[in-house]
Amino acid sequence: MAINIAILGFGTVGSGVAETLDINKDVISKRIGQEINVKYILDIRDFPDSRFADLVTHDADEVFTSDIKIAVETIGGARIAYEYTKRALSAGISVVTSNKELVSTHGPELIEIAYQNNCCYYFEAAVGGGIPIIRPLYKCLAANKITKIAGIVNGTTNYILSQMKNEGIDFDSALKQAQANGFAEANPSADIEGIDAQRKISILSTIANDGAYIAPESISAEGISAVTTADMDFAASIGCDIKLIALYEAGDKPVVYVAPTLVDKSNLLYNVCGVFNAIMVEGNSLGQAMFYGQGAGTLPTASAVCGDILEVAATDGKPAENRSWSKESVEITPYDEIKADIVIRVDSSKAVDGYEASVLSDEAVLVKGIKHKDIADLVAKTGAKSWMHYLK
Amino acid sequence: MAINIAILGFGTVGSGVAETLDINKDVISKRIGQEINVKYILDIRDFPDSRFADLVTHDADEVFTSDIKIAVETIGGARIAYEYTKRALSAGISVVTSNKELVSTHGPELIEIAYQNNCCYYFEAAVGGGIPIIRPLYKCLAANKITKIAGIVNGTTNYILSQMKNEGIDFDSALKQAQANGFAEANPSADIEGIDAQRKISILSTIANDGAYIAPESISAEGISAVTTADMDFAASIGCDIKLIALYEAGDKPVVYVAPTLVDKSNLLYNVCGVFNAIMVEGNSLGQAMFYGQGAGTLPTASAVCGDILEVAATDGKPAENRSWSKESVEITPYDEIKADIVIRVDSSKAVDGYEASVLSDEAVLVKGIKHKDIADLVAKTGAKSWMHYLK
Repeated sequence: MAINIAILGFGTVGSGVAETLDINKDVISKRIGQEINVKYILDIRDFPDSRFADLVTHDADEVFTSDIKIAVETIGGARIAYEYTKRALSAGISVVTSNKELVSTHGPELIEIAYQNNCCYYFEAAVGGGIPIIRPLYKCLAANKITKIAGIVNGTTNYILSQMKNEGIDFDSALKQAQANGFAEANPSADIEGIDAQRKISILSTIANDGAYIAPESISAEGISAVTTADMDFAASIGCDIKLIALYEAGDKPVVYVAPTLVDKSNLLYNVCGVFNAIMVEGNSLGQAMFYGQGAGTLPTASAVCGDILEVAATDGKPAENRSWSKESVEITPYDEIKADIVIRVDSSKAVDGYEASVLSDEAVLVKGIKHKDIADLVAKTGAKSWMHYLK
Repeated sequence: MAINIAILGFGTVGSGVAETLDINKDVISKRIGQEINVKYILDIRDFPDSRFADLVTHDADEVFTSDIKIAVETIGGARIAYEYTKRALSAGISVVTSNKELVSTHGPELIEIAYQNNCCYYFEAAVGGGIPIIRPLYKCLAANKITKIAGIVNGTTNYILSQMKNEGIDFDSALKQAQANGFAEANPSADIEGIDAQRKISILSTIANDGAYIAPESISAEGISAVTTADMDFAASIGCDIKLIALYEAGDKPVVYVAPTLVDKSNLLYNVCGVFNAIMVEGNSLGQAMFYGQGAGTLPTASAVCGDILEVAATDGKPAENRSWSKESVEITPYDEIKADIVIRVDSSKAVDGYEASVLSDEAVLVKGIKHKDIADLVAKTGAKSWMHYLK
């Protein structure tokens, strides 16, 4: 028996999916008792040099009216991908994807369409590349209230920050290196401005928040383009490293934001370097767990997409647990009202009245639980050179 | 709707399961659309002070002929637990457990009985405590050939080694501390001699080896009782830390063993300290991923057991993917024939002819790919003071 599938969009991830399904054909059919057969590759381009060239079609109608059970959406973006995903799900064809933009912006609607048509919309690859995180959250940690998530979810920025630290170079030089090495796109703004991380923490937060949707645009996101070599040196001087952290904390109004953060070396995230990702999850029964691996790349991402394909196949396209998301985005704590731990760069003899504070070095003071809206005031009053979020 | 379950054995983990199901009742019923109702707690003891006292029964017949759908086996050992597990599965009652001894020794038979009776035998909690690892291996990484696993899977020994390092104390003192703090049992031999790790790597290896069973007794296991403070100092001098590593490498005859190992500080496992566990998995599509968290403890282990309970409930007790194990243990590479990377403690001017070798310090030479059977010879020839496995 074979299950026919189509790959929509034959770029980096899509071709990795075809590749992975092919090289691991034997173990896959053994494990799920049936074969996964790529019947179509839908793309506007041709790929005459690909060994999968024969499967390429430009005819979407042919694909969506065929006997395929699963569509792999690896187009990216939220336009054509959105149309095709709706079309597939409406026809009862399960869709698996790595498209964090689409999932984070249209997840509630698409998941609902999947339910109405008794098929699945899975997106393990949308967060953390090859790292299993979505399914563990839904399945393995299902008996927990998830209290906190802190993650390095963008490989490009983590690579840039690692290069700045290791080679003592500034942001612009590190970005150029990242582009030269294929770790950053020609237009890197979605990565470096924290938009990609914002989308990913939107997805993780919504799951942790039991499907009460937290839209990306409601999440404050600061990128890393303002991080200087002086900041990196300062971080090192207090035993920290700067990482772009995406954070979720449970509550009536959850706390969610993305920001460059001083991560203490006692934290496992401190050692997550280069293009790797890691996501720390805290549950009320579990305690802390961390998931680490390659957050991007053709084959790691394909590994996650293919895991979803096999899950759909194993359950015959029927969704198991309740994964529905609320239609409307729920209220989260406004950024100004969030109480954060920050480090201010200031002569440590300066008084920090009214806050729980401790001295980290001659020119670094840790201030605990300060509301974001009060930070500017404190900085002005103490004459601090700068401030940054802090994660122990 | 409610699903009735029984907890067999109300010790540390069993009581944690009752506790977790109770405190997270609301999220659980929301997630799976039904309630999990603990109908019986089967134990030879009474627990008059427990708030679950009313549920305690000593009558196994009553339990196994009731309408329970799931039995939580948290008895431990491979005698009563074995009998009760067979009895439950034979009656079509799914069993979930944290019992690594039973799974590693009788897994093939018990999984087979589960299949014959169309129910599940799940054991997420048997390896890594609260860390999701079994289900991610089966589900999320299903499209991969698993090429390697290297894990710190025993919290007791990791705690002892961490204490030896941090406090400069010897093995006996660290063991006593561990016992005083509840991290080691009165009779600690299963932990410190590597037996517990041997069972866990047996389970992980069998899964990675696609169900071709690798029995614990076929796996060479060395514990940590011979590790000295001099060894710890030596490790630090070459930028390493000593960890008890359980290893699996794929192959026609897989390589599987447990041994104290010099872990280089560039390896993420280097920073896994105290009672924490971490398991690094390498897949041919995935690359490397690591799973980290609390490897033991009442609630973390209960978190994993409860994840299994919810999975059984969500799939109505019907196993999804093929998890069968071969009846007979397959052949693995004999210990003597395994090629390993080792560090010998020797004056680095000594010649190490015939091997790929590199100098790590004045008194440390890394020797690559030496067969275990040839190590004694090399040690004798070079006059090395000691040798140990090495993991970069």
